[in-house]
Amino acid sequence: MAIAFQGERGAFTELAAIQYFGGKEKTMPVGQWEHVFEVVEKRAARYGIIPIENSLGGSIHRNYDLLLHHDLRITGEIYLKISQFLLANKGVGIRQVARVFSHPQGFEQCKLFFKKMPGVECVPVSNTAAAAKKIKEEGLRNAAAVSSMQAAIDYDLKVLARDIEDDKGNITRFLILSNTGRVARGAQAMKTSVVFGLKNIAGALFKSLSVFALRDIDLLKIESRPVRGKPFEYMFYLDFSGSADDEAQRNAINHLREITVLCRVLGSYPVGRLAHPEYKKR
Amino acid sequence: MAIAFQGERGAFTELAAIQYFGGKEKTMPVGQWEHVFEVVEKRAARYGIIPIENSLGGSIHRNYDLLLHHDLRITGEIYLKISQFLLANKGVGIRQVARVFSHPQGFEQCKLFFKKMPGVECVPVSNTAAAAKKIKEEGLRNAAAVSSMQAAIDYDLKVLARDIEDDKGNITRFLILSNTGRVARGAQAMKTSVVFGLKNIAGALFKSLSVFALRDIDLLKIESRPVRGKPFEYMFYLDFSGSADDEAQRNAINHLREITVLCRVLGSYPVGRLAHPEYKKR
Repeated sequence: MAIAFQGERGAFTELAAIQYFGGKEKTMPVGQWEHVFEVVEKRAARYGIIPIENSLGGSIHRNYDLLLHHDLRITGEIYLKISQFLLANKGVGIRQVARVFSHPQGFEQCKLFFKKMPGVECVPVSNTAAAAKKIKEEGLRNAAAVSSMQAAIDYDLKVLARDIEDDKGNITRFLILSNTGRVARGAQAMKTSVVFGLKNIAGALFKSLSVFALRDIDLLKIESRPVRGKPFEYMFYLDFSGSADDEAQRNAINHLREITVLCRVLGSYPVGRLAHPEYKKR
Repeated sequence: MAIAFQGERGAFTELAAIQYFGGKEKTMPVGQWEHVFEVVEKRAARYGIIPIENSLGGSIHRNYDLLLHHDLRITGEIYLKISQFLLANKGVGIRQVARVFSHPQGFEQCKLFFKKMPGVECVPVSNTAAAAKKIKEEGLRNAAAVSSMQAAIDYDLKVLARDIEDDKGNITRFLILSNTGRVARGAQAMKTSVVFGLKNIAGALFKSLSVFALRDIDLLKIESRPVRGKPFEYMFYLDFSGSADDEAQRNAINHLREITVLCRVLGSYPVGRLAHPEYKKR
């Protein structure tokens, strides 16, 4: 039973899955984030993994929307340090590079680096590993890719420059999804994610946060997303400390249900650790 | 003195500017959102206009970040109904279309339409008007663009299909920026935008919202953005009803300053109207 992730082999999401599961489970690449949810729902994969938040770019809203529209549970999280590399085919020097392929976020994260390479054309592709695959498969001699070190190993590419991201504090948070939501709790600190809707956010948002404040439950994150078909109404995604099984948290959720339009617990799971990717020949 | 906007002529942002200013001011296209802020700061343009929020996709985070990093004031807002059109060179039929150019959001907004055109390749470009310009300038016979009706007029293209967006409630909110922040108030309802930072969001977010709740000031929108260099600390952007010159609002802002790390009023301005774009030959 595999872990589904969106992208090509060598994508940061796959590296996060390997760190989370210790390399024991098989990874399964799929084409779109939506497919990650679908293969887990159909039990073609036991787990799914999705990026949900980046320390520089913020939340990945599409995945918040998908959490709402699919009935999966969050069973874990992991934070992965992201490092970008400039990769090219062997024998290609940095001066030959006229075009660079990457995901738009790859370029966004390496702006200062590319300021020193004026005249180089940045061409967006669907993900950073796809960029590495493209220059390899097409044997491009005047192009490079912004991608991970794992992609350099997987596609046998040369590293032209390492750690080219502007901000070295570039960390992405990933969520682990499953059908069951059973989590081995142990002694770990837990957190819970919920989503809820408000009829009007005027006093209602304040009231909804007060159900946690009144019980001394720490809020860890709040995110708002528009409701489709209802311009400028919002859904709120909230992370708070503790498990939905704890007494105060259970009471807070019941209280929240009294004052919200829709309220769903997305999952309770151990607070994630920060991992650094390991690059391996495979 | 012109209104700076990001994109090519015919972009939705330019249409919003024309609606807001009644077509009396000159529009000035620039290459990037950042340049909009820069030309207004340097007084090369009197006003800037930026998209800030879309009823389907949510907030445009890059522009929230730019509001924080530049010292401009919000002096107005306008909501524009967005309609997408499939455009091609004259003489090209829909069956000849093998590739479609647009901004990634253009494709995202027309997913159902493109499900009915399997095998068509969607190629991302920097904005929807650039897509129209590209097929025109390159005289492409097997390609189309997802763009506005204004782009069809500006680039003399044929409409292959109209209103192809999945969700007819597609509305974008734009902000008007200037150096001075002087707003003719009149009898209009006002709103105010602020940005603030919190040391820890545990109890602090609740307290920061309470300064408004305690004074019966309606919250209209809340948005969180990560702080660069401080992984998973957040800045909050808040819109609330009333002007910063009103007594309760002024007191609330002073109260907010007591409990926040940074607190800046981005502007007080009349609540915007919903406009439909007008397409004109020019």
